[in-house]
Amino acid sequence: MKRSVFYISEGTGITAESLGRSLLTQFEGITFQQNILPFVDTPEKAADAVQRIDHAAEKDGCRPLVFSTLIRRDLREIITRTKGVIYDFFETFTSPLEAEFGIAASRQPGRSHSLHNYNAYVARIGALHYALSNDDGMPASNYAMADVIVIGVSRSGKTPTCLYLALQHGIHAANYPLTEEDLATTRLPAQLKPYRDKLIGLTIRPERLQQIRNGRRPDSRYADVKQCASEIAAAQEMFHREKIRFLDSTFASVEEIATSILHELGLKRRV
Amino acid sequence: MKRSVFYISEGTGITAESLGRSLLTQFEGITFQQNILPFVDTPEKAADAVQRIDHAAEKDGCRPLVFSTLIRRDLREIITRTKGVIYDFFETFTSPLEAEFGIAASRQPGRSHSLHNYNAYVARIGALHYALSNDDGMPASNYAMADVIVIGVSRSGKTPTCLYLALQHGIHAANYPLTEEDLATTRLPAQLKPYRDKLIGLTIRPERLQQIRNGRRPDSRYADVKQCASEIAAAQEMFHREKIRFLDSTFASVEEIATSILHELGLKRRV
Repeated sequence: MKRSVFYISEGTGITAESLGRSLLTQFEGITFQQNILPFVDTPEKAADAVQRIDHAAEKDGCRPLVFSTLIRRDLREIITRTKGVIYDFFETFTSPLEAEFGIAASRQPGRSHSLHNYNAYVARIGALHYALSNDDGMPASNYAMADVIVIGVSRSGKTPTCLYLALQHGIHAANYPLTEEDLATTRLPAQLKPYRDKLIGLTIRPERLQQIRNGRRPDSRYADVKQCASEIAAAQEMFHREKIRFLDSTFASVEEIATSILHELGLKRRV
Repeated sequence: MKRSVFYISEGTGITAESLGRSLLTQFEGITFQQNILPFVDTPEKAADAVQRIDHAAEKDGCRPLVFSTLIRRDLREIITRTKGVIYDFFETFTSPLEAEFGIAASRQPGRSHSLHNYNAYVARIGALHYALSNDDGMPASNYAMADVIVIGVSRSGKTPTCLYLALQHGIHAANYPLTEEDLATTRLPAQLKPYRDKLIGLTIRPERLQQIRNGRRPDSRYADVKQCASEIAAAQEMFHREKIRFLDSTFASVEEIATSILHELGLKRRV
């Protein structure tokens, strides 16, 4: 069984897609052919979308699924003319909210305000520069400026986590890789001691770490599973002994790790 | 008028929050006090969430809004006991989809599969390393490996765009800053000529560029509005003359720019 799926939005379509995908993962045994239709913000583009959906309907011999976060009435009306089945993520909740608030919704796409965008841009760029220049325990690292300092063994996921926190949330995230010396003593490195409240540890299962390191330096001591296991054990011992909160990155996406860090440290996003 | 809002999910809560926020921006004159409750994946955590919501209800003297993407029945049932108004983004569409497919939904959170996560991790990390080592026209840039090469004047938004494309979509994105020489000739730099199909230009309004550059090097020639305007004019002349597609980053978020680039170049995301 195969079904075509369209995600349609006046903006990026990211919300329509992420809710749609999580709904579809509940249904096994169906192959979904996914299409994203972003920036459908004129009647012409809406009419184009209808054509694409109807074309899929003909080709497939069954109704495509259309997940929509369209806000404008005129565009939603055009889309209702399609042969697809429409799941209207926006309008479905707008009427109940109007009833709850006792006021009418504007039904205008939230125009990204220029000033809001500019402030978010500045916050993100500042955070990004911070993350890039405080990556991997750089000698001049400015931990005093950090919102969070991520620590862990090499390849436990620190750099992507910090860059994601910067780009997505405007958070100042530094990272520090635990050295062989640190791991030998299982004591917190001296330069991190003043910043205990900002520390978060990352751990990972040895087999996964071995797999990741082996992709980078095949058959090295660095990628040896015993080496990986002993580094991780020492890091975890340090986390326990020094009472540092830590997360396991093995089965987590970068979004999940970032969200967990904000949650654990009680940090507010800056954008 | 003030209302408390809760976003609740078994996962990061990103989807609940983004749909919820776009719904709420339709209602003017109300102040929303927003709370994210991620990783509500046990009955205990669901009961905690109910307490927090009910506490807000008492404090506010009116019903909090609860935007939920909870999937598990047992957790959703616990949440229905709250004094908040629940907008159930998941269940609302699950029953219609069951009817459409003629099969029952599993109603299990899409456990991030270990293998899927690993492959996504490898793709993202590979793309991230690529972006970091092909940033800002580095001499050893490997443009042959690029999915896209972003070009533009200094501070037009190239680096955040490339890192976002890497982290979010696993795309190999290089970037090349147009030099004074390039801008003087308004000809495509020789090293980019073999890769015309992968090029995307970024432009920006002079006042915005001036504002951004001034934050970096206040009162410099670099941040002078005339200098900004002339660089941008030359870059745009090059884009037109060399028939390079380009986007304006002035009023766009990094997500919007990234989505536009995928859309313009017809690129498929790798994660």
